[in-house]
Amino acid sequence: VEVRLLGTAAGGGFPQWNCACRNCQAARAGGARASSRTQGCVAVSGDGRRWFLVGASPDVRSQVETLPVPDTGGAVRRSALAGVLLASADLDHVLGLLSLREGERLLVHATPAVRRAVCEGLSMGKVLSAYCGVSWAEPPPTPRPLAGHDGRPSGVLYQAFPVPGRPPRYRAAVAEPDPEDVVGYLFTDPRTGGRLAVVPGVGALDDGLLDTLSRCDALLIDGTFWSEHELRDAGVDAPSASAMGHLPVGGPGGSLRRVAGLPAHTKIYIHINNSNPMLLDDSPERRDVEGAGVVVGLDGMRLTL
Amino acid sequence: VEVRLLGTAAGGGFPQWNCACRNCQAARAGGARASSRTQGCVAVSGDGRRWFLVGASPDVRSQVETLPVPDTGGAVRRSALAGVLLASADLDHVLGLLSLREGERLLVHATPAVRRAVCEGLSMGKVLSAYCGVSWAEPPPTPRPLAGHDGRPSGVLYQAFPVPGRPPRYRAAVAEPDPEDVVGYLFTDPRTGGRLAVVPGVGALDDGLLDTLSRCDALLIDGTFWSEHELRDAGVDAPSASAMGHLPVGGPGGSLRRVAGLPAHTKIYIHINNSNPMLLDDSPERRDVEGAGVVVGLDGMRLTL
Repeated sequence: VEVRLLGTAAGGGFPQWNCACRNCQAARAGGARASSRTQGCVAVSGDGRRWFLVGASPDVRSQVETLPVPDTGGAVRRSALAGVLLASADLDHVLGLLSLREGERLLVHATPAVRRAVCEGLSMGKVLSAYCGVSWAEPPPTPRPLAGHDGRPSGVLYQAFPVPGRPPRYRAAVAEPDPEDVVGYLFTDPRTGGRLAVVPGVGALDDGLLDTLSRCDALLIDGTFWSEHELRDAGVDAPSASAMGHLPVGGPGGSLRRVAGLPAHTKIYIHINNSNPMLLDDSPERRDVEGAGVVVGLDGMRLTL
Repeated sequence: VEVRLLGTAAGGGFPQWNCACRNCQAARAGGARASSRTQGCVAVSGDGRRWFLVGASPDVRSQVETLPVPDTGGAVRRSALAGVLLASADLDHVLGLLSLREGERLLVHATPAVRRAVCEGLSMGKVLSAYCGVSWAEPPPTPRPLAGHDGRPSGVLYQAFPVPGRPPRYRAAVAEPDPEDVVGYLFTDPRTGGRLAVVPGVGALDDGLLDTLSRCDALLIDGTFWSEHELRDAGVDAPSASAMGHLPVGGPGGSLRRVAGLPAHTKIYIHINNSNPMLLDDSPERRDVEGAGVVVGLDGMRLTL
């Protein structure tokens, strides 16, 4: 499995267009202290040519542009994109689907709860039907071959697993919480045996989830907030981390302590909010993360499993 | 009036993520022949501090980032964005509204037809109400002071005028064509008398529209396609220019001949599709445009009127 981190920031990106916090000011100043990041997107491929995206962020256009343009016998319209896998229906994870409308029929893997949110809450099925159209696939709970929109197998096995979380904010008033509002994806390369888990949103690390993650060689996991009231403490009128469905990284109950104890050889935080102090290269929080053997994700990082 | 061209490409941008046409290959190769462009967005300001966007493209996040961050007494969340004016409900012109959800209540100027398309076709009113919320303003047919979301006047007068066009493709099956599906905006600076017209989509140049445009000092106008069957000729299965509501630039009936005859001192094509040959700096079509005294728009261009 080849893996590329195309975007590693949470919704709004880093710097965020309307934010002048210490982190965003450092990112705008340039230099090595704080690197800019686009909104979350992980690309996975079995052959290095056809790529599957976990998440379609609003930045998807420039993110897909970083993948190699395939040689497909002279066809004018062509792309390395073979399909999209949704881990939730959060806006920063799905809005990019509409920016993919100029392409071939879209293949989108999503649980029924996520598909309902995207179709009923955002009208995406109906809107996309006026352009490329969408084929929906329900991700399996056990390893199955992952195939692209042309039906050709990718050479990679995939499965989804439930993750504690919340429905997206635009659905909170109408949708009952569903155990499949948020999932993670496990990719397995049958040739190498390598296993990758991608979990862009995590509301809690329960025993079932930790057990799944303990069977991975590499882990890309939710690093949205450092602390529960990070936004409020920065002077922003916004809900707490847990109200938004994100377990903070820091503190006694945070994800870092538990992620650090997992056997995976590579552990990377993704979906990092602009307010998270671990974004600053010289912060104590960054030292804590790196000291625990965990990496703060950056756009452009690559893995092979 | 200060004006910045934040994005000058049509939907899909330039290069377009799924395209390997001659133009897109040249843009990817870098160098001076073909400069990359983000999707259409024009920013207008009366004071250089508070900016109004004509169009909210999917690239709005990086586009707003190019505007100066205002000094507003230490508030963490702040932005130069004072409001958005919609010229149509086309996806590449409105999707960015959802990326502005983290900010203050959005002020969106739109005709009733455009507002219906955005709210009924894309559920945007309902979705945004779960985040920042939206205030809608109907643009006036005669010059009126343009005010920002805080109610403060911008120092600029604005008005909308009808433009021949079509409802967006996602509404074609349900909405009757409406004379206000597409509009242009006329901005007047009462101090200098300078007048700017911004017309990102033009299906036809009729006498009424030409009369309006003949009263402008500067004109930013639809340059989507060079010819009627440009996409089909490039091997792309897509509707014709006129079926998409865009009058081509070239040919005997094209916009160039008529735009060239207008008295404005500055005439710039915007909303340029990746397939348009005038994007190539060394093309005969580019020579034709420049020979007629018209400019092929580029991200980052600035005007003062």
